[in-house]
Amino acid sequence: MFGGLRVVAAGATLITASIPEADLVQLDWRPPVWGDAEGARQLAILTEDSVDEANQRAIALIHSVRPQLSSVQLAADVVPGMVGQILLHSGPPIAWERMCGPMQGALIGATLYEGWAADERSARELLGSGQIALDPCHHHFAVGPMAGVVSPSMPVVVVVDGDRSAFATLNEGLGKVLRFGAFDSEVLTRLHWLREVMAPAINDALIATGPIDITTMIAQALSMGDEGHNRNLASTSLFARRLAPVLASLPNGVQALQFLADNDHFALNISMAAAKLSLDAGADVSGSTVVTTMCRNGVDFGLRVAGTGDQWFTAPVGPADGLFFPGYGPEHANPDLGDSSITETLGLGGFAMAAAPAITRFVGGTAADAIATSQAMRRITVAEHPVFQLPTLGFIGTPSGIDVRKVAETGVLPVINTGIAHLEAGVGQIGAGTVTAPPEVFVQALAALATKHVAVTS
Amino acid sequence: MFGGLRVVAAGATLITASIPEADLVQLDWRPPVWGDAEGARQLAILTEDSVDEANQRAIALIHSVRPQLSSVQLAADVVPGMVGQILLHSGPPIAWERMCGPMQGALIGATLYEGWAADERSARELLGSGQIALDPCHHHFAVGPMAGVVSPSMPVVVVVDGDRSAFATLNEGLGKVLRFGAFDSEVLTRLHWLREVMAPAINDALIATGPIDITTMIAQALSMGDEGHNRNLASTSLFARRLAPVLASLPNGVQALQFLADNDHFALNISMAAAKLSLDAGADVSGSTVVTTMCRNGVDFGLRVAGTGDQWFTAPVGPADGLFFPGYGPEHANPDLGDSSITETLGLGGFAMAAAPAITRFVGGTAADAIATSQAMRRITVAEHPVFQLPTLGFIGTPSGIDVRKVAETGVLPVINTGIAHLEAGVGQIGAGTVTAPPEVFVQALAALATKHVAVTS
Repeated sequence: MFGGLRVVAAGATLITASIPEADLVQLDWRPPVWGDAEGARQLAILTEDSVDEANQRAIALIHSVRPQLSSVQLAADVVPGMVGQILLHSGPPIAWERMCGPMQGALIGATLYEGWAADERSARELLGSGQIALDPCHHHFAVGPMAGVVSPSMPVVVVVDGDRSAFATLNEGLGKVLRFGAFDSEVLTRLHWLREVMAPAINDALIATGPIDITTMIAQALSMGDEGHNRNLASTSLFARRLAPVLASLPNGVQALQFLADNDHFALNISMAAAKLSLDAGADVSGSTVVTTMCRNGVDFGLRVAGTGDQWFTAPVGPADGLFFPGYGPEHANPDLGDSSITETLGLGGFAMAAAPAITRFVGGTAADAIATSQAMRRITVAEHPVFQLPTLGFIGTPSGIDVRKVAETGVLPVINTGIAHLEAGVGQIGAGTVTAPPEVFVQALAALATKHVAVTS
Repeated sequence: MFGGLRVVAAGATLITASIPEADLVQLDWRPPVWGDAEGARQLAILTEDSVDEANQRAIALIHSVRPQLSSVQLAADVVPGMVGQILLHSGPPIAWERMCGPMQGALIGATLYEGWAADERSARELLGSGQIALDPCHHHFAVGPMAGVVSPSMPVVVVVDGDRSAFATLNEGLGKVLRFGAFDSEVLTRLHWLREVMAPAINDALIATGPIDITTMIAQALSMGDEGHNRNLASTSLFARRLAPVLASLPNGVQALQFLADNDHFALNISMAAAKLSLDAGADVSGSTVVTTMCRNGVDFGLRVAGTGDQWFTAPVGPADGLFFPGYGPEHANPDLGDSSITETLGLGGFAMAAAPAITRFVGGTAADAIATSQAMRRITVAEHPVFQLPTLGFIGTPSGIDVRKVAETGVLPVINTGIAHLEAGVGQIGAGTVTAPPEVFVQALAALATKHVAVTS
């Protein structure tokens, strides 16, 4: 190998050793459960083998899912519970009054898009009146990036495995877009175009190609510098190249291909729906401390765990730390927002940073940071993903299945890659960076899991 | 950055340190010029500042080129000297009788394709008779992968910068293909299809899009797991996605897009032509020891150097070391073949291995080997490429501009990624791996450079 060269050949351990004084445990140690004695007692309760076994069951269920992108349809036609005047949003449940600017903006935009109001003022009144039902995407087998707003007549990608489905809207691209809270005529015109042109084109193309295996697409993209959350250039390019011959023979194919050529993040929403479908398989595994949902609504961070099913653990979320577009800074940043952290929950995004050293140009940090982040996430997960691999770490699987116990024990918080939205509705994206999940949600989850464990086993 | 984590952040030096006992100089040292005293004397002659200055001139000229893919045309119409019955081949000059099986097979196929002979036997006779001129691609501003055969009525990509041009055939894809010496009806049918359908489609698309900057395309692909030689998935996907909207509105666009979707190496030939165009800019810089050509014809390795212009230094080339397809092994492998090492000559391929850890699944080795290879190539080059970057090494430029002196002094030989052709004409590709340039060509070049240096300076 490598001809006359005599170089030391070693795998992942070599790269681990690349961090001077190597051991992240030493560099990053803190007292268990952030020094909380009650938490430490709860943690001790959850050390039984039965919890490990439940976690292995949960992650096996999650990893057994092979999401297939099968169609693009109107939300009202496929998303359960999309009946009447209802809008979905990202993150855990939140009332209109408490919502952040970008989320209110997106809901105003969706209200205008649906024709339920004629202008911003009347849309605000209607939304404030409570006549429009507001519900998390996660309560409807759906996920949405940033504000994550889904309305009945928006098209959604449908990702299936057997008789189970998950949904996400079509990615709008960058610039002025609904998901960052913009709702002017440019935004609404694009939403109409997505419904009338893009959605039928992609759907017809999928009919021609048959369902697309998203696990394979993401795995390939990880070997091409994507981490499956903030960087989607490879997955989008692979998707576009694959559908291109079919789209080219459809009436609106040229427009659809142009949109795919101009939007480096088109595949993100598809990956999100796939991650959602996978994690939903572990959403109710008794005794398991594996995280099944992480999401943010711009005010609160929301966590759900296999062993506590639908119960939300929430705490205030901060803004991301990262790089800002010219003219903006942390003072303009909205607290973190979106369901896209479903990718991290499965083992992508921040967890797969080692696959995407180039992303550090976008979210800050260095290539060494990227590798260190994936290494750190290994400390708080129960498995390696069986298909998603990290080439720079000797093709080990990405760290997958966050264990509430491990987060509490190590104090290492899940790292989430994210876009940064402006505080005010309508301004849009002003940067990108990383954020960590707040410790409080893990403290709450630990308490609930310990209580439930005692109730079940005693 | 990265929330609560405290990890050591460092750039390239950290990854250098990842190699135990770090220093490749220590691990890989050998006596200068492979222990040859005369060579050491020649090396001493070439230590003057004027040589360094000439090298900086040469590499500056090479790096100043910004190749643009402008059109696809028939070789007879654009490649200088493609007049009458002439066929081009890869590598340094070689007579028909000495050629390896795959190259003879490809020339037979091209003779049939041109209609100069009706069957294999008469093609062999014609080629053996000397009536068909055989010339290296490199003598005609062209490059070709593997056998590298170019015939007058084959379409070629035209890459330009100002009034200078370089050329390469369209990549045929994998399977039974001319460049691996296959020449049956399947191969010839595809060659005709490339001329009649693919070439006009791509050319028309380029008219619509305008010229494409190949430097930018390659740089982006390096951040997506390509190394620009054996792995071209990212560049091909980016190229296909960009041209898709335009191709979709052309008569043969669907077929062209299907071919782009099925051929992960389509962009290789474009990158090769771009590298050729760049290196030709340094092809005649008096006093410079920078390598401007590395190529192989399946028998000999050919080297050319800026300071000795068109002079070829040749030596026998061995087969690549790597991974074989099922049913094949080293006993079936042809000695290394093709002009594609023009990519390494510019700083891609083996030199950019650190960008493409996933390629180790294809050519053998580990992700750590890939990084070590790029590091080793830094020891024998005069510059970092100003645009091509290695994300895993802190975004340093790829090692670019091989210095004959440094190769001779360190004994570190250029590493070339390559496909492995079967020994016999017509069988095709049987594996992929890496090969090193033979030391002899550097010994010869060193002697010629030293002689010329003495003649000029005395």
